[in-house]
Amino acid sequence: MSVQSVSKQTLQRLPQYLNFLKSMPRAGAANISATAIAEALGLGDVQVRKDLALVSSGGRPKVGYDADSLIADLERFLGYDDATSAVIVGAGDLGRALLGYHGFAAYGIEIVAAFDHDPARSGQTIHGKPVFPVERLQELCKRMQIRIGIIAVPAGEAQAVCDALVEGGVRAVWNFAPVMLSKPESVLVQNEDIAVPLAVLSKRLARKLAERE
Amino acid sequence: MSVQSVSKQTLQRLPQYLNFLKSMPRAGAANISATAIAEALGLGDVQVRKDLALVSSGGRPKVGYDADSLIADLERFLGYDDATSAVIVGAGDLGRALLGYHGFAAYGIEIVAAFDHDPARSGQTIHGKPVFPVERLQELCKRMQIRIGIIAVPAGEAQAVCDALVEGGVRAVWNFAPVMLSKPESVLVQNEDIAVPLAVLSKRLARKLAERE
Repeated sequence: MSVQSVSKQTLQRLPQYLNFLKSMPRAGAANISATAIAEALGLGDVQVRKDLALVSSGGRPKVGYDADSLIADLERFLGYDDATSAVIVGAGDLGRALLGYHGFAAYGIEIVAAFDHDPARSGQTIHGKPVFPVERLQELCKRMQIRIGIIAVPAGEAQAVCDALVEGGVRAVWNFAPVMLSKPESVLVQNEDIAVPLAVLSKRLARKLAERE
Repeated sequence: MSVQSVSKQTLQRLPQYLNFLKSMPRAGAANISATAIAEALGLGDVQVRKDLALVSSGGRPKVGYDADSLIADLERFLGYDDATSAVIVGAGDLGRALLGYHGFAAYGIEIVAAFDHDPARSGQTIHGKPVFPVERLQELCKRMQIRIGIIAVPAGEAQAVCDALVEGGVRAVWNFAPVMLSKPESVLVQNEDIAVPLAVLSKRLARKLAERE
């Protein structure tokens, strides 16, 4: 079953289910029935049951759905489990270099947009990618269902950017700022220091030059 | 003994010894006496003996110097064994980003100059570093005794740049161009693909998103 083969009405209800499930207060694993969802959202019981059956095969009589699994099934169905689209924050030299780098395509990865706090930069396109004001970061990450954020801003701005990314639903952060980010445990962070490969090369060279003694 | 405490005359002769030793045809290890060097260069025997004694403690009676060790001692004395100064070729987005990156200083490494084939760029300074025309790459590497070159040009230009660097005396190359460089065995190469860390992060994220099934 794909998004294309589902009625527009159903497609409009799926994000409602998702939002409700995510906002549900619970500790650890939890089950939820189609009836409970229908009641909470003021929808018809039969309709909700049908909608969810399209998306997930995890429903069991009397027990209902495991909430986490249903969230995952809904996100996958809606294409929200995208691990290959990224946004970059900071359209300075490094940001521009990454936006123009062709090597990401080999891994099926695309940087789809950039964000910058400089009004002279936002509104532009760089290497064909739109640059938005950083104030719209959280909103647009949510709307585009972005899961990967790249931080290419100065150290002092990195934590605020990280917070906005996480609030916007980003689950993995590639961080070029020389700062340890504080973030929820569930968010992956890859810290990058581009000096390291050159430092390694310099050490290898120093050893080699010394070997001739 | 440092360069400062040596007479100007001696200092001017040291590069002559170095050039002679490097140009000496030989297979494998070879010894050379101060007398032989003096004869080859038309200098006084005693003078050469004294000069070399300042620079190297490797001379042995009747045997002379091991040529490789003497080359290394001369280069170290003259400051030619610098494994921390680098030049970058290509002052595009990536080149600019690397020129402006503060993280190299933590490893004692400095990018001292950039080269570019674009006349609009050469003559400029970027992040305080001078940009020279790429035609001067070989000459200036030699003159500045540069041992590390960074290649940040398109794939099609990378091999020619590598050749010029090696001709200019560079012994270690950090290569951002997506191409396998052909170079002498003695030259170290570190190939860099900045997409790799993001590809790894993307895979980790995909695995994590799938775990929720």
